[in-house]
Amino acid sequence: MEYIGETIIEIGESEALSRALSVFKRADSTLLGSGDDAAVVSLSDPRVVITTDTMVENHDFRTDWSSGFDLGFKAVTTNVADLVAMGATPRALTVALVVSKQTKQAWLEDFARGLQAACDQYTPRVEVVGGDLASGSEIVIAVTAHGDLAEASPVLRSTAKPGDLVVVAGTLGKAAAGLALLNFDDPTAAASYEELVAIQLRPSPDVVLGLEISKTATAMMDISDGLSLDARRLAKQSGVSIELEKRLLEGYAAVLEQASQSINSRAGSQLVNEWDWVLHGGEDHSFLVTLPSGAPLPRGAKVIGTVVLQRDHAVYLDADPLQAKGWDSVTG
Amino acid sequence: MEYIGETIIEIGESEALSRALSVFKRADSTLLGSGDDAAVVSLSDPRVVITTDTMVENHDFRTDWSSGFDLGFKAVTTNVADLVAMGATPRALTVALVVSKQTKQAWLEDFARGLQAACDQYTPRVEVVGGDLASGSEIVIAVTAHGDLAEASPVLRSTAKPGDLVVVAGTLGKAAAGLALLNFDDPTAAASYEELVAIQLRPSPDVVLGLEISKTATAMMDISDGLSLDARRLAKQSGVSIELEKRLLEGYAAVLEQASQSINSRAGSQLVNEWDWVLHGGEDHSFLVTLPSGAPLPRGAKVIGTVVLQRDHAVYLDADPLQAKGWDSVTG
Repeated sequence: MEYIGETIIEIGESEALSRALSVFKRADSTLLGSGDDAAVVSLSDPRVVITTDTMVENHDFRTDWSSGFDLGFKAVTTNVADLVAMGATPRALTVALVVSKQTKQAWLEDFARGLQAACDQYTPRVEVVGGDLASGSEIVIAVTAHGDLAEASPVLRSTAKPGDLVVVAGTLGKAAAGLALLNFDDPTAAASYEELVAIQLRPSPDVVLGLEISKTATAMMDISDGLSLDARRLAKQSGVSIELEKRLLEGYAAVLEQASQSINSRAGSQLVNEWDWVLHGGEDHSFLVTLPSGAPLPRGAKVIGTVVLQRDHAVYLDADPLQAKGWDSVTG
Repeated sequence: MEYIGETIIEIGESEALSRALSVFKRADSTLLGSGDDAAVVSLSDPRVVITTDTMVENHDFRTDWSSGFDLGFKAVTTNVADLVAMGATPRALTVALVVSKQTKQAWLEDFARGLQAACDQYTPRVEVVGGDLASGSEIVIAVTAHGDLAEASPVLRSTAKPGDLVVVAGTLGKAAAGLALLNFDDPTAAASYEELVAIQLRPSPDVVLGLEISKTATAMMDISDGLSLDARRLAKQSGVSIELEKRLLEGYAAVLEQASQSINSRAGSQLVNEWDWVLHGGEDHSFLVTLPSGAPLPRGAKVIGTVVLQRDHAVYLDADPLQAKGWDSVTG
């Protein structure tokens, strides 16, 4: 997306910020928002849940694919997913933003609108309570999100029990399919699968479903780096193994088959495979959950396997070990 | 400072992180540290005070001046100063770190030691409860710090009252003098004034003094961008003016006179002036405080002027308006 007009540097920090800040709306939990040395947020519980996530231009995103709005939206929802995966209700965010010499004021305001649009999705609304604007050679977005446990116990990754059901709440592989479509030379492929591209650019995990299922979960995590890698982390931290059943994952692959065929037929080769997206694709930010076998399964959640007691702390797909092929944010 | 050995990219995110994380020590207020989707921190009060600050390589620091240790230390203390300026006791930090292809693992571990050394200064200790490591073309450090009000009211910038005393808790101009020494062509100048250079590289505002004076302060802020600019912000936000007395600031200038003369005599010209450092130099991270005129003055705090009711919301030095010349973090 092209932005025109003055750059942030031309306008200067304080003026640029004051225009961008006017986009933000107040939330009831904010006692003091931006404008002082620090913000003050009121929780219902003196335990605060904190997570932080960073996105770097040309490493984690490209400005020709993602608008400022998309990036603001994604920066919020990916962090909120981490809070919800602990069973915490999102309350407030801070945003550390590095912009480059080239970054336009119009980009900054679109970014702020994306942050706010994501915050507006939640009930009650989440507020951007503070931030910092700095200058560098590329855009860096570091959001820190704060959640409220509201008397509940935090849901850890390390407490899955043998015999539990392994459940996914949300989509699998859609964001990876969207990324493959964006990466593909022929842009008409991406244009035909707007929903998949949208999930890559503006993931929006179901917070209501996540918080509901967190109440009965024995363990839970945000799937940010792909099912194979994240399930392995959960298995390791819980000291268990996980057996996934391929037939239970078929529905996730089926909805992506047409998109993979479309890429492969245009490419004239087997460039992509929908099963890779389902098993190894990150960024849907769905929830990987373990539930006691008798627990009710909320609408929108799906059983994909079981937790087993095994010494190797590995993930199996049917009888075979499932190799982890997810994303390492440093080596790329 | 030169670091040798493997780069972080060569080692890979998870191994690099696990080595760096081993540097960190637990604090009593941390219920759950790094390793899950989010951290959980226990406060004595359900109001959490949050601040964030960003440092960018070649904009906010240079790696030939600052070691990894220096940067870790400074990233903590500058954020903690913002919490203390609200009257909040620091409890926990998250660190979003972008490293470059060139960044060595040894730098990362030195950075972690600097973070921890700063956290160890406080009683009780502050913990680095989470973070994120990403890769980019330059180093970016974004710390978010969390404080506990412990039943007190937050101390704002906007509540100074006419008749209040204007007080500084900490040094003025030393960090700016240190920066001028580092910037000066002849490195023997910096070598002669190690204390000033150390305050620039590893500022360490007096948290005990800051929290003590916050109890009687009518308004308070961290002086991060220089007295002239920050006093103007406080005046504007409080709807008052501030009259500083030059004779009350003379002590701050006197201790910097020798360093400024040393630079000027080597340069053969009036390159620098200690009064510029005192009035406009940032980064000492001392506290600008307003106190009711009868309030006791803690040891280490110094009266520098008074709050007056005037319509222009300006800062005066004796009879003359004091031009704000501080630091804008975007335009530099």
